Amino acid sequence: MPGLEAGPVVHGAVADAFARLRGRSPLVQCLTNIVVAGFTANVLLAAGASPAMVDNPAEAGEFARLAGGVLVNLGTPQTHTAQAMADAAAGAVAAGVPWVLDPVAAGVLGWRTGIALELLASQHPAIVRGNASEIIALAGGQGGRGVDSLVGADAALDAATGLATRHGAVVAVSGEVDLVTDGRRLLRLANGHPLLTRITGAGCALGALMAAFAAVVPDPLLAAAAATSLLNVAAERAAEHAAGPGSFAVALLDALHALTPPELADRLRQP
Amino acid sequence: MPGLEAGPVVHGAVADAFARLRGRSPLVQCLTNIVVAGFTANVLLAAGASPAMVDNPAEAGEFARLAGGVLVNLGTPQTHTAQAMADAAAGAVAAGVPWVLDPVAAGVLGWRTGIALELLASQHPAIVRGNASEIIALAGGQGGRGVDSLVGADAALDAATGLATRHGAVVAVSGEVDLVTDGRRLLRLANGHPLLTRITGAGCALGALMAAFAAVVPDPLLAAAAATSLLNVAAERAAEHAAGPGSFAVALLDALHALTPPELADRLRQP
Amino acid sequence: MPGLEAGPVVHGAVADAFARLRGRSPLVQCLTNIVVAGFTANVLLAAGASPAMVDNPAEAGEFARLAGGVLVNLGTPQTHTAQAMADAAAGAVAAGVPWVLDPVAAGVLGWRTGIALELLASQHPAIVRGNASEIIALAGGQGGRGVDSLVGADAALDAATGLATRHGAVVAVSGEVDLVTDGRRLLRLANGHPLLTRITGAGCALGALMAAFAAVVPDPLLAAAAATSLLNVAAERAAEHAAGPGSFAVALLDALHALTPPELADRLRQP
Repeated sequence: MPGLEAGPVVHGAVADAFARLRGRSPLVQCLTNIVVAGFTANVLLAAGASPAMVDNPAEAGEFARLAGGVLVNLGTPQTHTAQAMADAAAGAVAAGVPWVLDPVAAGVLGWRTGIALELLASQHPAIVRGNASEIIALAGGQGGRGVDSLVGADAALDAATGLATRHGAVVAVSGEVDLVTDGRRLLRLANGHPLLTRITGAGCALGALMAAFAAVVPDPLLAAAAATSLLNVAAERAAEHAAGPGSFAVALLDALHALTPPELADRLRQP
Repeated sequence: MPGLEAGPVVHGAVADAFARLRGRSPLVQCLTNIVVAGFTANVLLAAGASPAMVDNPAEAGEFARLAGGVLVNLGTPQTHTAQAMADAAAGAVAAGVPWVLDPVAAGVLGWRTGIALELLASQHPAIVRGNASEIIALAGGQGGRGVDSLVGADAALDAATGLATRHGAVVAVSGEVDLVTDGRRLLRLANGHPLLTRITGAGCALGALMAAFAAVVPDPLLAAAAATSLLNVAAERAAEHAAGPGSFAVALLDALHALTPPELADRLRQP
Repeated sequence: MPGLEAGPVVHGAVADAFARLRGRSPLVQCLTNIVVAGFTANVLLAAGASPAMVDNPAEAGEFARLAGGVLVNLGTPQTHTAQAMADAAAGAVAAGVPWVLDPVAAGVLGWRTGIALELLASQHPAIVRGNASEIIALAGGQGGRGVDSLVGADAALDAATGLATRHGAVVAVSGEVDLVTDGRRLLRLANGHPLLTRITGAGCALGALMAAFAAVVPDPLLAAAAATSLLNVAAERAAEHAAGPGSFAVALLDALHALTPPELADRLRQP
């Protein structure tokens, strides 16, 4: 990939970031969807962060200034929560708080795609996280059929690089191998497990973890890589004890809670 | 029951329907309540379908035209989601997409009962699913005290038959023995487990599974019967491993994921 | 603490209250947040109550008159649900139905603090439940940083006593040791487990359990104490089987379902 540096070895940096998250327990404001709000809060608590789901227009902007990181997830937007998302993003930017955009189903549905593009253009997100379809759609290409991505993350490499460069943001693309890029540096992360695609909310929770890490490390590329690695390594560990997607989701929370920074570094794989 | 044919033996047809659901992974749009949205998505994923919870008025009608099946569940309606439900039902009907109406607490509360009756009268649902109280209320009788049904499904047999005939829809009544009828044919399904009534969302998830099956088989009676059988057989299997309602809900997702079409057919019971 | 009687031994009364809850299965209307709605419903079902999440302005006041108890939880208020909360509280008071106020994040965010104070002033809650920060904020002091309480329950003893006396309500403060007071009597309850703070919704579910107990016992102090003891004793039992917060939440539901009134009385500890 011309113009992209080879990915650095990030094991130590990821472990340090995780130790910092555990030590600081950052306050993460989530404006997310009704499907995954509970699971997202539990993922953040298990990892060591402090979730707060403040998503009304009367308070969202005010609270974003107090938060360590903010997640804006477009899974089930409504007129009033979309207003709260705009306020939270603006409040975060005004206060120097990093915020993460998860443009769920961008490219499939017109209204939310417009919301995502407007947020992207007007408020500087630290990280944009999605599957390949969503990232391609945000970059101006043709998207997929919804929340599933039918293509691998590498199909979105050009879109991700372009988006990152244009908006000065880190872009993270989920897939069997995950990509994280700031337009200049590129990381490929190979951990994970297929059961992550058989439970709802893994991608959404990943966005929340990115906001948590962005609250404790200054480099959003590292924040996105650490969150991805933590969720994926915990998923591998959880799958060892799971009889299916139900017990996997439970074991994933246990694993996020039990993992130590050195274990995370040990199991991290870059392809 | 005069006017109703004896129930056909459906074992093979249910197994085929389940195999088709697994093969096609239909996109199921759910406009459902804030209590069970996550569990419903996990049930659909575990069974092999693709959930998408698009429930805002700006997108719901547009998305229904792309979906394989649509669920409208009145558990926690608000003014804006009720508008989205009307749009989704209309979009589904316009595009020939089957949709399922779950009139939660119809007969107990005036506003939602009106919404359910108007949807039923103006947009042709493929399937109406409820407990006996709700079905009796929709047919014009006296309902129960809320989401619980205090009477058995058979108490709603006349109401279900009348409703099915009048609206050209399949009506499914949950109970210890479940009824499914299109006004002419009647199926009684005997699988299930009492723990299904000690977790929230089993009935709501059943409506979503009906929408998933309706996306892959042309006969809504079969879709309703297959969904009921799948959930109930999975519940029996889950109960073998459960220490209470918490572990039961987890094991239910595992069982939905693990069940094969032949195992489903093997365990299906018609009384 | 001058003016406060020593806490009575409540073991037998708590066991009786729990037996009554199991026998009557009270209908509990919950106007709660999108994060914990599902978990709250499952906690109520596991304990033996009947949850109904009716939270729209068209129905909330009407339904409160039918309920045994009502929970108003300010976790994720929106304009329309806040209206429903006011209607539900007014409907409950008009019908003599006890209602519980859980002022999540009061003191941190202006809008919801105003809602909580107005509800408290205009509609008589049977029980106000919160962490120390929230109770101090409602009493006019300085609150914490959100849903977490950074101080022990005893820091809110004066605030709780004052609030209880001023509003004729029972005030319950969560912490390592929980406090329950009506301004005259004071109970300290010592059961519980640290994992309760690593899952989302334990405090919110506690408010719902208080509404369930208030539906079956006339003394709100006993209702608050019984709910607190039930959740905390179940948590201790669940922690024996848990590998982390994920399996703990599952085991908590199993334990709530399995516990008998005598076992509850046996394990209850007052420091």
